[in-house]
Amino acid sequence: MRVLGVDPGLTRCGLGVVDGGSGRSVSCVAVDVVRTPVDAELPRRLLQVSEAVDDWLDTHRPDVVAVERVFSQHNVRTVMGTAQVSGVVALCAARRGLPVSFHTPSEVKAAVTGSGRADKAQVTTMVTRLLRLKKAPSPADAADALALAICHLWREPIRARLAEAEARAAELARTHKARLAAAAARRRDDTTGTGLTS
Amino acid sequence: MRVLGVDPGLTRCGLGVVDGGSGRSVSCVAVDVVRTPVDAELPRRLLQVSEAVDDWLDTHRPDVVAVERVFSQHNVRTVMGTAQVSGVVALCAARRGLPVSFHTPSEVKAAVTGSGRADKAQVTTMVTRLLRLKKAPSPADAADALALAICHLWREPIRARLAEAEARAAELARTHKARLAAAAARRRDDTTGTGLTS
Repeated sequence: MRVLGVDPGLTRCGLGVVDGGSGRSVSCVAVDVVRTPVDAELPRRLLQVSEAVDDWLDTHRPDVVAVERVFSQHNVRTVMGTAQVSGVVALCAARRGLPVSFHTPSEVKAAVTGSGRADKAQVTTMVTRLLRLKKAPSPADAADALALAICHLWREPIRARLAEAEARAAELARTHKARLAAAAARRRDDTTGTGLTS
Repeated sequence: MRVLGVDPGLTRCGLGVVDGGSGRSVSCVAVDVVRTPVDAELPRRLLQVSEAVDDWLDTHRPDVVAVERVFSQHNVRTVMGTAQVSGVVALCAARRGLPVSFHTPSEVKAAVTGSGRADKAQVTTMVTRLLRLKKAPSPADAADALALAICHLWREPIRARLAEAEARAAELARTHKARLAAAAARRRDDTTGTGLTS
C-alpha cells in the first residue's frame, strides 16, 4: 500500500509518500514541502497547495491520503489556515475517489516513537531511522508528513481488524436479539392460544 | 456587480446571489442551502459542497465571492468543519480567478441591521426587507448568505475608497521622502565641493 501523508499548513505544507511492505517495513518514495507566500491572498495560497497536491497524486498515485487532524487549541489564525488547507487536501483526494484518513498528532507521535508526547526532534530521528534515510528530512513539516504516512500504514490494519471485530460483535448481538424476539413471540402465541381455547 | 454570498457549513451551507444596483439598491437573484449528510465522511461532504458551489458559479456567474470569516471561539468540531468548507469555497473561486472577500459576522450584522450584535431574527428581517422578498429566507443560513452578499456590496466601495486614499498617502510620503533625500544629497555634494576646493 502506498500512502501520501500530508502535514497541512499554508506557509509550509509537508508532503510525504511512503510504501508499506510486509510486516512493519516502510520505504520513502518522495518527500517535500510546499511553500506559499505569506503576503499572498488566502484563495491564491489554497490554490497553490491544491495544485501541488493534485500534482503529487498524479505523479505518485497513492492508495490513500493520510492527513493530520487539526485541533483549535493553538493560535487561532494559524489553525484556521491549517484547517482550510486540510479541507482542500481532503477535497483533492475525494475528487479522485481516494480514501482520506485523519490522524491526531499524538497518534502519529505514538506510532513512530512509542510516545504520544514525543517532541519534533524525536519524530524526525525515528522517521529517518525507520525509512533508512541518509539525511534527516527537513523542515519538520516534511518529517511529519512521512510520520503521518507511516502512522497510517501501521494503524490501518489494527483499525480494520477492530472494525471487523466490532461488525462481528454487532452481527452476533443482532442474531441473539432476533432469537430472543422469536422466543418471546412463540411464548406470546402459546399464551394467546391457551387464552383462545380456555 | 453580482456577489455570491456564502455562509460556510458542513451540515448546512447557505448560498445567496445578490445584484447591486445604483446607490444602495440590491436585488436577490437566487438563494438556497446545500445540505450534506451528517453521517457521510468529511471528504465526501466537502466534495458535495464544492460541486454545489461550482454549479452556482457556472449558473450565476458572480463577479466576486463573499465568505464569512470563521473564528474558533465556538464549538471546536463545528468550527473546524466550517473552516474546511470556507477553504473549499475559496478554492472554487480561486480556480476561476474570482476575487474572494471575507467578512466577519459582526461586519455583516452591522451592514444590514446597523448593529454588530444583532440577532439572527433581526438579520433575517432586514434581509427580507432590503431585498423586498415576499417570504423570509429560511433557514437562517440562507438569510446569512444574502446578508454577506449585501455586506460586500455596501462595504466594498468604502473599502476601495479607503485603499485608494491610503495608496495616495503612501505615494505622497514616498515623494516627500525622495525630495528630502535629494536635498540632503545636494547639501552633501555642496560640502564635499567646498572641501575639495579649499
